[in-house]
This record gives sequence, C-alpha cells and structure tokens, in this order.
Amino acid sequence: MDKYLTNGDRLWSALMEMAEIGATSEDGCRRLSLSDEDRKARDLFAGWCRDAGCRLQVDPFGNMFAIRPGTDPDAPLVLIGSHLDTQPHGGRFDGVLGVLAGLEILRALNDAGIATKHPIAIANWTNEEGVRFKPGLTGSKGFAGVLDRASVQGEAGADYFDELDRIGYAGQRLADFDILAYYELHIEQGPVLETADVAVGIVEGIQGVRWFEVELQGQDAHAGTTPLDSRSDSFMAGAVLASRLRDGALSLDKDIRFTIGRVEVSPNSQNTVPGLTTLHIDLRHGSCAVLDAFEQLMSDTLADVATQEDVQGSIKQTMRVEPVEFDAACQGHLRQAAQATTGTEPVFLPSGAMHDASNLATMVPSAMLFVQSRDGISHNPLEWSEPAHVATACEILAQAVLIHANGPV
Amino acid sequence: MDKYLTNGDRLWSALMEMAEIGATSEDGCRRLSLSDEDRKARDLFAGWCRDAGCRLQVDPFGNMFAIRPGTDPDAPLVLIGSHLDTQPHGGRFDGVLGVLAGLEILRALNDAGIATKHPIAIANWTNEEGVRFKPGLTGSKGFAGVLDRASVQGEAGADYFDELDRIGYAGQRLADFDILAYYELHIEQGPVLETADVAVGIVEGIQGVRWFEVELQGQDAHAGTTPLDSRSDSFMAGAVLASRLRDGALSLDKDIRFTIGRVEVSPNSQNTVPGLTTLHIDLRHGSCAVLDAFEQLMSDTLADVATQEDVQGSIKQTMRVEPVEFDAACQGHLRQAAQATTGTEPVFLPSGAMHDASNLATMVPSAMLFVQSRDGISHNPLEWSEPAHVATACEILAQAVLIHANGPV
Repeated sequence: MDKYLTNGDRLWSALMEMAEIGATSEDGCRRLSLSDEDRKARDLFAGWCRDAGCRLQVDPFGNMFAIRPGTDPDAPLVLIGSHLDTQPHGGRFDGVLGVLAGLEILRALNDAGIATKHPIAIANWTNEEGVRFKPGLTGSKGFAGVLDRASVQGEAGADYFDELDRIGYAGQRLADFDILAYYELHIEQGPVLETADVAVGIVEGIQGVRWFEVELQGQDAHAGTTPLDSRSDSFMAGAVLASRLRDGALSLDKDIRFTIGRVEVSPNSQNTVPGLTTLHIDLRHGSCAVLDAFEQLMSDTLADVATQEDVQGSIKQTMRVEPVEFDAACQGHLRQAAQATTGTEPVFLPSGAMHDASNLATMVPSAMLFVQSRDGISHNPLEWSEPAHVATACEILAQAVLIHANGPV
Repeated sequence: MDKYLTNGDRLWSALMEMAEIGATSEDGCRRLSLSDEDRKARDLFAGWCRDAGCRLQVDPFGNMFAIRPGTDPDAPLVLIGSHLDTQPHGGRFDGVLGVLAGLEILRALNDAGIATKHPIAIANWTNEEGVRFKPGLTGSKGFAGVLDRASVQGEAGADYFDELDRIGYAGQRLADFDILAYYELHIEQGPVLETADVAVGIVEGIQGVRWFEVELQGQDAHAGTTPLDSRSDSFMAGAVLASRLRDGALSLDKDIRFTIGRVEVSPNSQNTVPGLTTLHIDLRHGSCAVLDAFEQLMSDTLADVATQEDVQGSIKQTMRVEPVEFDAACQGHLRQAAQATTGTEPVFLPSGAMHDASNLATMVPSAMLFVQSRDGISHNPLEWSEPAHVATACEILAQAVLIHANGPV
C-alpha cells in the first residue's frame, strides 16, 4: 500500500470517528438528515475540510461543498460526493465512505504537494436516505433543479427548510460553481463484487425502476367441494404467472431484476380457494428497451395465464424512474485508474439502487465506483467493507479524479 | 310429479315457513344454535312432527328425534337427519332441507296410509355449524360418543349445556334407540351437479382433510442490487412449488382437492426479495392411500424445489380428519331409488365438506344424497336449489328409506 497516493488507514480512522456520531449498538449508526446527529457530523466534516485548507459553501438545500482550488482560476471543478445521513438502523459505510474518501484524496494531495489544474471539491448531499423527509435524494435533486419544493414532506410535521435553519446549514444560491465532472464512490449493497472476488467495480449506470400492481381476479370457492378443474384460483394463477415471468426474465437479459416482494391473497383463509390475488412487482434494468420488452412479455404472459387459469388479469404501473447511463469518459478514467492500481481489468456492473449520482448525471459527466460490501448488506448495522478494499477504492477514485482534474493529457 | 309419493310443494312451503325464523335481508337466515331463533325453529318443527303423529325425544346433547312407529315393535329404526341451525349469514337450505325432507316423507307416508316394518325417525342435530360453539357437529359427535365434553367452547362465555336448559331442549339419555341405517339429504355446496346438469348425486364418502404449513426460508435481499441467479427468493420458490404441486395433484387423481388459500410473505415489501414465505395447504380426498401418496409427492417436490431455488423448506401437518366411506348397501338403495325416480343412472361424488353423517357413519350404515345447489354457493343468503330438484331429491330419499324400512325384500 505504500505505493498509494492516498492513506487507507487515515480514511478508515475518519470513517470510524464519524461513526461515533449517532452510534447505535452493534456498530450501527442512526444519523437522520437534519437531526442533531446530522449537524454534529456536518460540523466534524466541515472542521476536517477547513483543516485541509478548503473553502466551504452551503447551498439552499443544505448541500455542503468543500473546495480545494486549482491552478487555473477559471477552470470548472471536479466534484466528489455522497452523503453523511443514514437509515434509522444504518451502518458506517453507506454514503459516508464516498464523502470521506473525497476528504482523504484532498488530504493526500496536500501531503504530496500536488496541485491540480481544475479545483477538486467534495459534496455532502442532504437527505439522500429519504427517511425524515420524502422524497429521498432531496439535496442532489434540488441542486440539479429537478426538485418540486412543494412535494417535500417531513415526518411528524418537520419542515425541511426550517430544519436546515435550525441546524445552521441553510445556505445561499452558489455563484461561479461550474462542474467539469462528478465522481461518487459507494458500497455496492449487492453481492456481485463479493461473488467475483474483486475489491471494486465500475458502475455503468443506474437501473430504471418500474413498479406494477398485477391483479388476478378469480372466484372464492370452498376448498373441499370445488374440483381443481372447476376453479378460478387467483393464487394459483399468480404462482404460475410468477414462475413464468421469472423464466422469461432470465432468458431475456441476465441483468434484469424482477422481484415480487409483496403479495396479497384474499380472503386468505386456508379452506377457501382465494378469489383475489395481487402481486406487487419491482422491475429494474439499465436500458429502457429491455424494460419495455419485459413489460410486453409480462402483458402477453398475463393474458395467457388468465385464459388458462380462468381468471381476470390486469396490470397497473404505479412508479417509473428512468435509467441513467454514466459518462463514458469518466468510466474510462476509472478503468485506467483501476488497471494502474490493481494490475487487472476491472469489473463493470449496473447499480440497482438510486444514488445522488443519478441527479448529477442529468447535469454533468458523472460516474460511480462501487466497493465490495460483505453479503451485500446495507441499511443495517452489519454493513461492512474490508479495510483493504476501501483503501484500493479510494486510491482508484483519487487517480481517476487526478486524470480528470489535470485536463486532457 | 303426480307419480311421486312425496309432495314437493308441501316441502317447499315448509322450507319457506322455517326460513321466516331468523330471516335476514336478501332471503338469508341467521339461526345460531341454541339461540332464541333456534328455539323457535325447534318448536315449529316439533309441532309439525306431533301433528304428523310422531313421538318426540331429546337426548342430552339437544338432538331432537321424531319417531313414526313401525309394524314390528322390536325393529330398529331408519333415521333421516340433518340440522336446523345456520351460519350467521346463512341461507334457507343448508341443513334445513335434510330435516324437512324427513318430515315430508313421514307426512306422505301418513297420507298414503303406508306402514313400514321398521320405524322411521327424523333427527335434528344440534350445532352442526359450529358458530356459537366449537367444535361444530357437536350434537352428532355427542350422539356417536366421540365428543370430548370438556372441549366444547361457547362464544362470549356461553355454555352449551346451560343454553340447552335455557331454551328447553336439554334431554335424557335415550333408551331403546337402535338404528338400522342413517340417511341425510343436503345441498351439494359445490359445482359438480350443476356442471353435470343433474338434480341429485349419491355421496360416496366424506373426504379426509389434512392441513399443512409449508415454510420456505430464503434470504431477504435488495430488489435492485441482487441478480436473479444470486437470490434465495422464498416467494418464487413458493410459486414454483404451488404450480408443480397442482400439476402433481391433477395427474395423481382428479378428485384430489388441493388448495393454497392462505399465504404469508415476509417482509412483504415491494422492493425486497422476500426471505420467508409460508403456504397454508388444505388437502382433501376420500382415500387415505391417495392422501398419503400426495403427501409423499409434496415432500419430494419440496425437496427438489428447495434445492433448485436455494431455500430451506419444511412441512408441518396442522390438522388431520380421516375420510369416511358411506355404506355400500345404503348407496345401493339410493341408486335404485334414483333410477326409478329419474329414469337415469345417478352421478356419484365425494363430499368435500363435513356433515353429521360423518359421525353417524362411525356407528351405523349411513349414506348421503346431494341436491344441486346454484353456483355451489352455501353459507350465504344466495343459497338456492331449484324447487323441482328439491322435490326429486326428497322423493329419491323417500324411496330409498322405504326399501330400507321394509327390510330385505
């Protein structure tokens, strides 16, 4: 590790020190956005950034920016960001790693006396987790100009902007804040990198998400008196449909995420053939074309199953988030940095979860790097990434940012 | 119809008059066991029986017996029975038809001046429906000596035996009450006879019932980040299992009733691959061998699906009621009577629901006749059987009872 620019041990110490704010039993963290814990975390981070010689700015959404100047006073900045807030039973890595890796990069550049042409800045986006306030990713949405301010709803009557005032992080509209590119390091929250036995992966994009409610309407009937071939059994129709759709997903594209996570069976009585079953489907993929194709498959299969099982079927779309493709040049810088750091060709993967980078990608060239997370667990005190993987990920991020911040070679 | 011994119109009038006691909106009936409505129904029935020249007896379980003497003073009696109590949102036919058809037979024998060698008696069994008191079929269980008196639980603190006293139907242990055979006419409560477009069917037996709880234990996972082939998706495993078991049931025996009526999915969140799914299975068939074979199939299929879907599977049996086979000679008398009455070969079918005849069959040769019920609906104000079908069923029952009550030809 002594060939690294960045210092993994120092980053790890910063992570552990930050984790003491809002620490819960079993190494968890509870640092809800704009709470007193969030204020303490922001203050700690701000102090570290000032110590590293950065100028601090806060925008009207409470997003914090710590800026290390570049050598060209007119050059736009390279931004590294993520979030310091957590879930109610959160862990020590989700979000925090991306912010503190940015800090470690600035500290390492200072130590090595390296100047960059473009300024490098770190962002801490407000309320990524969306726990105290809906919708989530509030800060980065506001920054990207895609937030409907009237739609922001606080828990128990809390007001987002009042709470910003209360904790002292209501800022001003930023002037002269041109961004060249955005990079975000985050834990994977999935099993792909662990299965592939690699420290990091380059994120190709963020999957689009579509939610559906599939209703199967049959006929309640007596479990004892109604022969199998005389039934309109809504649950059996749902089971056949679920199994066929999963097979369809696997043959259509291995990267499709097709989940039936919520099921309602009515009247849900053991000796009654159930007349109504509702399947709540979560569908994700990085490509709209693939999502459209699966949606067509779903509709065709439902029609087929409904006929075969003598039920009425209907599909309603209840949510839709478009996919995001990350910038090819930024991904290229990450790839070059990963090759140099690890000596191997990096893995590319999609992100199944939303991130602040989704919003940044609508404005500026953006990319994400994932670090392996144990058992894919997140939003849980058991969240864990190996120190060696964290160090490698931070170094790759630093090298990619350096390539970008020194302009075209 | 004028070649019939019994009078369908008179039976229909009795049904409609009885239905006025506890009448609810939309032609329903609410006559809970041992309620004031039940007392009124019993009083009306008792009066009709006395008018028909019957002797009345009540046993310690409140079961009522109306006896028309035979010519041989030592001959055991032929019993016709069912129940006058209903479900809370019950109809006008379930149970009542079987009791009042018995009354019509006695009235018709009186009108025609027909004496029988064996006495013929009508039973009104107490608390068949099991609404106010658990377990159901209390009266016939008590009569058959298979009731654990301590197990009888009343709703809202009601005591079965106190309530019998209160309504004046607590009787004595019966002496000299030898039964030659038992016959019960009931609405089908299923679609088989309607589908076959016939008025009646002869019941071969009452299906054995086994309940199972099948637990599929997988692993909660993020719907976006977990590839399909890395999941332990308990609901998908349940869906595949349900569909395979249904196919297995259809190929094993067409009379199997296999129902998954109750399903629990945990955590039941749309964007989480569910870690735990529980399927509550109701399995019925008239033969223990077939039930055993399906149970083996279920266990083998579960093992197979659990391996394929990477989940842990377990099966627990939570209820078991043995099947009942009705007496061949009694079924033969019904068949002969049906051939004579309708001029066609009758349909035979199993009963998927429990009846008082299940308990009588443990004591004496017993059989049941089903009459077509519209849309298979019961326990509902919409319960309906066509007057012509009711008349045919009553006549067949009368002819079968006559064959039996006049001894071997």
